[in-house]
Amino acid sequence: MKVICSKDNLTEGINIVQKAVPTKTSLPVLEGILLECGDNFKLTGNDLEIGIECLVEADIKEAGSVVINSRVFGDIVRKLPDSEVLIEVKENNLVTIECENSYFEIKGLSPQGFPALPAIKKDNAFKISQKIVRDMIKQTIFAVSTDENRPILTGSLVECKDGEITFVAIDGYRLALRKNRIDNNSSELRVVVPGKTLNEISKILQPEDDEITIYSTSNQIMFDIGNCKVVSRLIEGEYLNYRSSITEDYETKIRVNKNDLLASIERASLIITSDERRFPVVFYIEEDKMVVTSSTNVGTVKEEINVETDGNRIDIGFNPRYFIDTLRAIDEDVIDVYFATSLGPCIIRPVESDNFIYLIAAVRR
Amino acid sequence: MKVICSKDNLTEGINIVQKAVPTKTSLPVLEGILLECGDNFKLTGNDLEIGIECLVEADIKEAGSVVINSRVFGDIVRKLPDSEVLIEVKENNLVTIECENSYFEIKGLSPQGFPALPAIKKDNAFKISQKIVRDMIKQTIFAVSTDENRPILTGSLVECKDGEITFVAIDGYRLALRKNRIDNNSSELRVVVPGKTLNEISKILQPEDDEITIYSTSNQIMFDIGNCKVVSRLIEGEYLNYRSSITEDYETKIRVNKNDLLASIERASLIITSDERRFPVVFYIEEDKMVVTSSTNVGTVKEEINVETDGNRIDIGFNPRYFIDTLRAIDEDVIDVYFATSLGPCIIRPVESDNFIYLIAAVRR
Repeated sequence: MKVICSKDNLTEGINIVQKAVPTKTSLPVLEGILLECGDNFKLTGNDLEIGIECLVEADIKEAGSVVINSRVFGDIVRKLPDSEVLIEVKENNLVTIECENSYFEIKGLSPQGFPALPAIKKDNAFKISQKIVRDMIKQTIFAVSTDENRPILTGSLVECKDGEITFVAIDGYRLALRKNRIDNNSSELRVVVPGKTLNEISKILQPEDDEITIYSTSNQIMFDIGNCKVVSRLIEGEYLNYRSSITEDYETKIRVNKNDLLASIERASLIITSDERRFPVVFYIEEDKMVVTSSTNVGTVKEEINVETDGNRIDIGFNPRYFIDTLRAIDEDVIDVYFATSLGPCIIRPVESDNFIYLIAAVRR
Repeated sequence: MKVICSKDNLTEGINIVQKAVPTKTSLPVLEGILLECGDNFKLTGNDLEIGIECLVEADIKEAGSVVINSRVFGDIVRKLPDSEVLIEVKENNLVTIECENSYFEIKGLSPQGFPALPAIKKDNAFKISQKIVRDMIKQTIFAVSTDENRPILTGSLVECKDGEITFVAIDGYRLALRKNRIDNNSSELRVVVPGKTLNEISKILQPEDDEITIYSTSNQIMFDIGNCKVVSRLIEGEYLNYRSSITEDYETKIRVNKNDLLASIERASLIITSDERRFPVVFYIEEDKMVVTSSTNVGTVKEEINVETDGNRIDIGFNPRYFIDTLRAIDEDVIDVYFATSLGPCIIRPVESDNFIYLIAAVRR
């Protein structure tokens, strides 16, 4: 194998495929990046859950392949001068890297042991802008569970039906739902994608309107992003039936500036130290006024906010972390919050958009 | 106590005095900031090694004092709206903080238990620009030892004599010396200041020409920086006699671009992983050419650099970390490196300045 490419293109490719390279594993070959030269120059990382491959623009002098330790390769390439890089594989998988006056010889591994990415049939496909997928992930992923005891909740439900795509995440205490129209699409999809996969993909996607294609089988999903393909296993099992918990009924509704509410809850949570996770912030909602309070061994906080109230007075407590995560994910300035009872969950919707629904369980006091 | 001040001024004061507040201590009062209102509004932090006091511009309504937990107070004030803050002490040291629609009640502590800063006699004083002190600290502190077995080396020698101020740090493997002229000064000084103190002071000092005043006694030093005073204990004992190790003799001298040398050593050290700390980088110096190499289980690196050589060929090995720290501390572009033998230390001096001397011990190979 012998190939010449620019340091910048190579660095970009490494940064992407490294997201699928585990830092610690019992199988050394998985800590490597597979370099392949054939019709094009391809990098692959694969931790057996997520696999990412990326094409790098290059001048291929000789076909071949090798596996090289990801950390070492990445560190070296990032520190090279901004210039052309020549990579060559010699006998016994010895990789030489040359750039201006720098010369590296790094012991590589045979590509034989590197696990290939699973092949995905391209029947079930749909196209969507990468900016929308990126936003949908960012606005729901915080509600994905990290509790391995309920594996199905460690992923997001991705549903595509009737020209609409929906992302849903639930961790047992809160729910985040984000939907969007997609045009010209007859494909149906209902899969649960691991939170880790979505997190890595959201870092690769750019806030641009270019379309990506999503393919899926019963147990794999592939995101085809131009020069880069991400393949991930899916989580098996039946997702929660969440629709019944999103009701339209309410006893009290407030319309409030999101940033005012966020700043108040953030301040009220400052006296809730790590030993006091069980302490809620309590909302006292009256006519056109809301007081956010907290009280711990450290002291007490009282925050007043102007709101538009529709319905009855209500007092209700929440885990401030859940409210903070949710409000930070919302781009819109004004939100409606719906309360049914002082023990039940509240529902949050931006006023200007039908595309979001958040639900947060109340805390018993 | 009752006082009104701006959120910004208060935040600035807290940020400074917090550098002297320990995060974990057995004496809760030390985890607090002392707030005092008399002729002015003063904040104090004191971990018994370093004490910092800072005046905050304020409208004092009522004299008094209280101690409030530093982390809680800092977190609250930073999150307040950009507005006026009213702080008041009620019965039982209860502190109330009001700002726009936010109202906090925080349990404070009696100021009685808070240790006063040691009084420093103002006899032995000299003035110097804060930018110079800041630079002198930054350019030597990396060579201060962290080994508590030789306490004297965990500080920097600060010497003031014959119109010249000198900072010296030595950790047994390297030495950093930075000196500067000071005008109109007859005071003499020879003290060892703890590295931790210098590190905190370098963060408080601004890169500006305003003068600060340094006072010292036999066991304390005070840096008077306008509205802010830092008092620190000194390290007792006799500092190393380092002068004999800085010789003018050499067998080989190179003149080299600092950034070229730094980039090459950084790259050569990339294959030296944490398990391989004992591996040096080796310099092969010939006529007008230098090769920097390293070789470990990961592979080998060879870097060629153009240099001006004066003297004999030499091969010599160094701990790359020590060279990297030193070269990063030097602002000048071109340096001279002097080698006496292939086992002895080298001496580094910027070509454009007499104010710096660095010495790095060679590694036996």
